[in-house]
Amino acid sequence: MATRPILVEELVPLATGAWILGSGGGGDPYHALLNLQRLYREGRVVQLVDPLDLPDDARVAVVSTMGAPLVGEERLTDPVMAALAVRQMEEHLGCRFDAVMSLEIGGSNAFQPLMVAAEMGIPVVDADTMGRAYPEAQHSSFAIGDLRPYPLTLADVRENAVVVSHVASWKWMERISRKVCTEVGSIAATCKAPRTGAEVKRWGILHTVTQAIELGRAVLGARARKADPVAAVVEHARGKLLFGGKVVDVARRATEGFLRGAARMEGLDADRGRTLRVDFQNEFTVGWLDDQVRVTVPDIICVMDSLTGEAIGTEALRYGQRIRVVALRAPSLQTTPKGLSHVGPRAFGYDLDFRSVFAEEGA
Amino acid sequence: MATRPILVEELVPLATGAWILGSGGGGDPYHALLNLQRLYREGRVVQLVDPLDLPDDARVAVVSTMGAPLVGEERLTDPVMAALAVRQMEEHLGCRFDAVMSLEIGGSNAFQPLMVAAEMGIPVVDADTMGRAYPEAQHSSFAIGDLRPYPLTLADVRENAVVVSHVASWKWMERISRKVCTEVGSIAATCKAPRTGAEVKRWGILHTVTQAIELGRAVLGARARKADPVAAVVEHARGKLLFGGKVVDVARRATEGFLRGAARMEGLDADRGRTLRVDFQNEFTVGWLDDQVRVTVPDIICVMDSLTGEAIGTEALRYGQRIRVVALRAPSLQTTPKGLSHVGPRAFGYDLDFRSVFAEEGA
Repeated sequence: MATRPILVEELVPLATGAWILGSGGGGDPYHALLNLQRLYREGRVVQLVDPLDLPDDARVAVVSTMGAPLVGEERLTDPVMAALAVRQMEEHLGCRFDAVMSLEIGGSNAFQPLMVAAEMGIPVVDADTMGRAYPEAQHSSFAIGDLRPYPLTLADVRENAVVVSHVASWKWMERISRKVCTEVGSIAATCKAPRTGAEVKRWGILHTVTQAIELGRAVLGARARKADPVAAVVEHARGKLLFGGKVVDVARRATEGFLRGAARMEGLDADRGRTLRVDFQNEFTVGWLDDQVRVTVPDIICVMDSLTGEAIGTEALRYGQRIRVVALRAPSLQTTPKGLSHVGPRAFGYDLDFRSVFAEEGA
Repeated sequence: MATRPILVEELVPLATGAWILGSGGGGDPYHALLNLQRLYREGRVVQLVDPLDLPDDARVAVVSTMGAPLVGEERLTDPVMAALAVRQMEEHLGCRFDAVMSLEIGGSNAFQPLMVAAEMGIPVVDADTMGRAYPEAQHSSFAIGDLRPYPLTLADVRENAVVVSHVASWKWMERISRKVCTEVGSIAATCKAPRTGAEVKRWGILHTVTQAIELGRAVLGARARKADPVAAVVEHARGKLLFGGKVVDVARRATEGFLRGAARMEGLDADRGRTLRVDFQNEFTVGWLDDQVRVTVPDIICVMDSLTGEAIGTEALRYGQRIRVVALRAPSLQTTPKGLSHVGPRAFGYDLDFRSVFAEEGA
């Protein structure tokens, strides 16, 4: 497999871009970034492999930190624990992995495979299964593709380890693994069902590591030249600015292994007099402008600091923040009827049809 | 290994005796008995092996149905599912078991290894780890002996299967496996951590299958000769009659994978004017006579139908039942300081020291 090193100077752009793609979730990448920078200082370098270069029979580990993002701010990301879940999967399967990829490019989970890669000496695949972050197992592209949901390994900080070796469905995988995750403290390192190179090429969301790095570069470049970073995101990703204002209320609770709630924002400048409410389950799900549906999953709803363009996670939203809300385009797989059955508004309990904000202008 | 067949005519005595030893829990053995009688009609015969005849390196599976007894009345015991958990353990370990034993001789779980034995063609060990039934993992004699708590396999009716491959402690095994059990419907077939013949001989509660059969025979014999079955239990097992009366109130809820509550009984005849309250968590834990502590775990608290001597499970207690309450002796391991730290009243949340009802007369 041809690989290229991920350069140390790409780590900050990756963190910035992945946090935007997190759509409020996936966990603040700050601690993971620090971990990676330390590993790089120690001389480790992570290799990136293009998924299209994967042999069909390559064995790919799919990793993520599972749980409520708020908890991840207190119980910090740990490369050894991340690798432990993968090693448990290797032991369960009786084979070694050739590469590792992220379940979700959004937030801290963009770095999860890099930490595993640095610990285990295997390359990271330039792909994920969401193109963003989503809260549940059945939201992945591998679930949309009806690939096998099991086995899954889960490791916590206390040496507790669980293999969910067989499940009746993706929803059962989500239910069982979520309960275990909640019991061990609402955060755990997981290794999802192993994939072949052929499966990754067919069903993965491809080149999202590169996409996140480039998105982060757009933000950092705009900041460097004193331009508007939010406008840079919109331009770079052909996104859409939905709202500008400030956060005036946040209802938030960590429950059932998730962070759930809603944030209310009042408009400023062009949006003065308007109100946007954004609901979330780890990630932003539906935005309501003056009580009318404005944007829903799978469109990627990003809440960013108005000045810096830094993403704001659902666990960090608070009164007074000056924000702008941008929508980015969902991976096309997610807007098919099958995709929408997994990640459309109904999959999150809303009696709403998906209408992309990008459909408005035929864009 | 020298074995002897368990005869079909021993199945009813086993059910009767095991249900008494269940101390209200372990599940009503009725459906398991029907399963075994059907398997015997199909020509299968289960072999019993004396634990003292086990080679030190024999591999012994330890099985139980885990969950809330009330649920077991609706989702019935299934020999194939019982064996499935054991086969999953064999797959996880990469070896075959030589024999199978019960986690708890109390209630339906007395039959769990017989069902596995009939399905898999291995003998049942004449032993268990409780000498009765208890609700949680850390109540077993193997936990008292500080043997390794993992791995554990769990199977449900939907093909969901989980391996708890490593835990930090017995309590963590209980917590994690209980959450999974609750999520799949508060009932599951489990295969506990595998044991060697040497471990079973050192830490098992020995000859409890035989003990249960003989206790059941005492009851059935008394019924046949129109004698008092409850008195026969007291005499046979050197137990103690604590109370006679009728059930006047039951508070009961299925919660967190357990059946919790309390039953209040008013005295009749010699006990007229007195009240006994018995608390339970699946099994009876503490009995209060006129609001004074009368009996606690690990003494085995048995509530029996006054006339037939049939045990009454915590899920079947109801207003108006004429009952007698008997205490039977705990296995000696459970009354050591280490044993009491696992199964004494404090282990169930009561700020009480254990004082056996059998200590009163120096018996």
